[in-house]
Amino acid sequence: MFRTHTCGELRIGNAGQAVTLAGWVQRNREMGGLTFIDLRDRYGITQLVFNMEINSDLCRDARELGREFVIRVRGKVAERFNKNPKIPTGEIEILVEELIVLNPSKIPPFTIEDHTDGGEELRMKYRYLDLRRNENRKNLFLRHQMAIETRNYLNFKDFIEIETPYLIKSTPEGARDFVVPSRMNEGQFYALPQSPQTFKQLLMIAGYDRYYQIVRCFRDEDLRADRQPEFTQIDCEMAFVTRDDVLNTFEGLAKHLFISVLNVEVSDFPRMPYQEAMKLYGSDKPDIRFGMTLHELNHLLQNKGFKIFDDAGLVVGIKAEGCGDYSRKQLEELTDFVKRPQVGATGLAYIKYTTDGAIKSSVDKFYTPENLKLVLDEMGAKPADLILILAGNTDKIRSAMGDLRLEMGKRLDLINPVEFKPLWVIDFPLLEWDEETRRFYAKHHPFTSPKPEDISLLETDPDAVRANAYDLVINGTEIGGGSIRIHNKELQQKMFRVLGFTEEEATNQFGFLMNAFEYGAPPHGGIAFGFDRWVTLFGGGDSIRDFIAFPKNNAGRDVMIDSPSVISEEQLKELGISPSTK
Amino acid sequence: MFRTHTCGELRIGNAGQAVTLAGWVQRNREMGGLTFIDLRDRYGITQLVFNMEINSDLCRDARELGREFVIRVRGKVAERFNKNPKIPTGEIEILVEELIVLNPSKIPPFTIEDHTDGGEELRMKYRYLDLRRNENRKNLFLRHQMAIETRNYLNFKDFIEIETPYLIKSTPEGARDFVVPSRMNEGQFYALPQSPQTFKQLLMIAGYDRYYQIVRCFRDEDLRADRQPEFTQIDCEMAFVTRDDVLNTFEGLAKHLFISVLNVEVSDFPRMPYQEAMKLYGSDKPDIRFGMTLHELNHLLQNKGFKIFDDAGLVVGIKAEGCGDYSRKQLEELTDFVKRPQVGATGLAYIKYTTDGAIKSSVDKFYTPENLKLVLDEMGAKPADLILILAGNTDKIRSAMGDLRLEMGKRLDLINPVEFKPLWVIDFPLLEWDEETRRFYAKHHPFTSPKPEDISLLETDPDAVRANAYDLVINGTEIGGGSIRIHNKELQQKMFRVLGFTEEEATNQFGFLMNAFEYGAPPHGGIAFGFDRWVTLFGGGDSIRDFIAFPKNNAGRDVMIDSPSVISEEQLKELGISPSTK
Repeated sequence: MFRTHTCGELRIGNAGQAVTLAGWVQRNREMGGLTFIDLRDRYGITQLVFNMEINSDLCRDARELGREFVIRVRGKVAERFNKNPKIPTGEIEILVEELIVLNPSKIPPFTIEDHTDGGEELRMKYRYLDLRRNENRKNLFLRHQMAIETRNYLNFKDFIEIETPYLIKSTPEGARDFVVPSRMNEGQFYALPQSPQTFKQLLMIAGYDRYYQIVRCFRDEDLRADRQPEFTQIDCEMAFVTRDDVLNTFEGLAKHLFISVLNVEVSDFPRMPYQEAMKLYGSDKPDIRFGMTLHELNHLLQNKGFKIFDDAGLVVGIKAEGCGDYSRKQLEELTDFVKRPQVGATGLAYIKYTTDGAIKSSVDKFYTPENLKLVLDEMGAKPADLILILAGNTDKIRSAMGDLRLEMGKRLDLINPVEFKPLWVIDFPLLEWDEETRRFYAKHHPFTSPKPEDISLLETDPDAVRANAYDLVINGTEIGGGSIRIHNKELQQKMFRVLGFTEEEATNQFGFLMNAFEYGAPPHGGIAFGFDRWVTLFGGGDSIRDFIAFPKNNAGRDVMIDSPSVISEEQLKELGISPSTK
Repeated sequence: MFRTHTCGELRIGNAGQAVTLAGWVQRNREMGGLTFIDLRDRYGITQLVFNMEINSDLCRDARELGREFVIRVRGKVAERFNKNPKIPTGEIEILVEELIVLNPSKIPPFTIEDHTDGGEELRMKYRYLDLRRNENRKNLFLRHQMAIETRNYLNFKDFIEIETPYLIKSTPEGARDFVVPSRMNEGQFYALPQSPQTFKQLLMIAGYDRYYQIVRCFRDEDLRADRQPEFTQIDCEMAFVTRDDVLNTFEGLAKHLFISVLNVEVSDFPRMPYQEAMKLYGSDKPDIRFGMTLHELNHLLQNKGFKIFDDAGLVVGIKAEGCGDYSRKQLEELTDFVKRPQVGATGLAYIKYTTDGAIKSSVDKFYTPENLKLVLDEMGAKPADLILILAGNTDKIRSAMGDLRLEMGKRLDLINPVEFKPLWVIDFPLLEWDEETRRFYAKHHPFTSPKPEDISLLETDPDAVRANAYDLVINGTEIGGGSIRIHNKELQQKMFRVLGFTEEEATNQFGFLMNAFEYGAPPHGGIAFGFDRWVTLFGGGDSIRDFIAFPKNNAGRDVMIDSPSVISEEQLKELGISPSTK
């Protein structure tokens, strides 16, 4: 036995006990004839004391111990003279009688402290040392806790966790698949799942009624910051449900996680149609922790002779309270912000309502003070408020104004970082037109059901068809999304036609699912949550990488194990593939 | 809302209530003016009644309903006239007032009953229908339940579930890897994990102390019956532990699963050295539900002039009680059994001790009756007992006799199918010599620690080195295995040398792990359980395929989705690979 207790366990009540502890040397300091060592393990830190007068050999050995050495000590628990109220073991220390070095350590390439001096690349290379840091340990425990509570809730609600296969079939719809060459079926490939979508639908057809799985998914995308080629979903599906059954069930899950993990009570989640979210927040994942909603101004500002506004599909404003006295420099900063390529506006107009009641505007040569006052009044502006205005293509300008709104929210400190405001965004468009390939794509995926009242538009006005789909959004982050699915072969075929599949392609790729629809498929729907993202949100983090034990970098590499890597000629030969010559 | 209740929920206390149910038509039968339908869902079966006299249109509609139609009905709960005590809803039925067909069904290709008329290939193709059968549903619920209880136990014991990556690095040691071409790093490949072995060791080095994961693993093997290219492990690792700490912890897990899932109490598990298991049972996974242990007879039967026995490394017998009067035909059957290629003996000798006390033997021309009587006495044979004897190469003959012992156990009905007798097999050999490649292989894997007292033999007598390794065996099935790991760089390097790795190969493949050993690696060890196999054992099944939702067939194919399959030229080109020309 290596230890009688962990390093987080001993209290004043243990004083006088003989104990054995094992762990890592966090700190080693001399004070006169005494040597103090902070011994660390997952559970906490316990102070060890070595006394030169009592046992000088042992004390000298202790002084040799470097950071991160792994040691085992035997000794007696004693009450501390100088208690440390900051840690649970702070009232005691161990008077060490025996010391064994289980494994020495080279000097770590960065400090294993809350604030480390290691850069990200270095920490990733030595991820096993980085993971010793408190912050990472807390993040992985949070993840573990959220997985436990997710399962607790879903098990209680009669969901059954069922494992679906990882070696499946490649389908060109959606993102790129990772593929796996089959040695036994030469020239053929498995694909890794982008999600268990078709399998969970088959489980509904098989009568399992309520399915879930916390499951790895794979997407071979050009990585952007905070995308991982493999990521984890809480994947769920229910049979015999309407949309509201699904929303209520998973609103329940979210509330359970808030209360059980964060001890936060949240009110019922608003349900906001996609169109409203775009109109009011310029985003399909609105952060509703603050107002400053978008206000359409076409009726007040068009047809007054200002060509830029007159030509625009949309003229839209937000009201920044207390900013009526913004300087030219501050306004220029905002103009620079909206002109960034990521935001994409060509300019920014404003109406300043100064503290002393003056109205100043960047467009005042086109508008009378009365015109401008009408805008201020309609938007409820008071002296010291600022109206910011963008104009242009409706979709683009909404999105740009959504970004400006968030920027102003941050500048004005309107966003409470410890508040949570979840909502459901509903009634997404079913299809998205792609100019480049000149075809429709499924906004969600091809199995999403149109709203029943819109089905008739599918072949006449596809753009107008709303999906029976929904997203869970928390604080401006999309945490999950799902839909009621198609469960009828004819409708599914129609959907594939609208998406430009030939009958042969549809049958080749999804024939098994459409066949299954003919053998008693129940109505069903579901949702999938991005687990990495949800944990990151709950942990108050910026990057999902900090909440994944062994993440890949932005080039899709694991720099610790140095993967991907070349494989042997023999392996390639057995698999029947070779690097193609270009 | 599609239903007010499930089909397993209503009881006599609900009589008189208006309810709405939804489900599948299991059976449809007419009796006079009445039509009865058994409506099925995951939760049970409820009887629906349609009365021709009360509503002839509705009753006619009901008569049209085929098997597996999905319907919704509204009606009143009524007490049944003929109660069915076999099902929990058997006291009530629903007097239907409204019927809606949610989805019709073609006639299923096989019957959805406990005993179906569908062959395996057909059922696999329509797996979503096969999964509707009770047996499969029970199997998947058992699996779910075992996963829940595994997590309950391990969470309670302070283990933390941590997800490790699926896109890792190929290493030629062990079985073949499945590989995944990297589009972003052309010419390079990820590999799918055969197990998270190195990651869980790194987590111990990172200080996580107790890790587990229920995780998918992948092996590209030539499939035998009951091997799957992807399978699930309960993967565990602990730091600061001795072998006995590990065994006690996971004996606790096994006992918890026995009691919580099967309601079976099992006694403490015996711990049997590998050598003893081979000697007494001819197997490293002995079924100890019955005795009939192997008895070495070299000292009694060698050097009496019978060349076959004299030349053998081992002469070994088992005693089959009550078989002393076996006929020539029965003995020939046993001879045929041991001569099968899978068993591999060249012949079978016997000594019959007949009911009337006569001694008859297939080798009596070489042995005096006194010789034979000595064997009978030493083996404690009584009249009506039979001694079966094999001779030859020690390892081969032990294994053959182990097979014959199991065969006799079955023939004599000595194996209680509902009894469970787990044991630990310990002290496995560290290395296995391979004649073909003329090198040692790790019997477990290259990270397994030798027993400390045997380390000195590693370079002088590798064959004799015992590993600090252990297997959990239940009823003759290996359910899991593990070991105390090497945590010291020098010992790991020595191990790689013994296994014939060059220094460069070792560094290339496992450099990150050996580096990690230099930064304070604690002593650690762990175990992994074959979850599919464990569930199959608990479910009393023969094939793991019956306990996997979507298994692959023996050729590694999923015949339902038709995978693996060819992928497009464009995909191949993007990945930078092409089918090699041979």
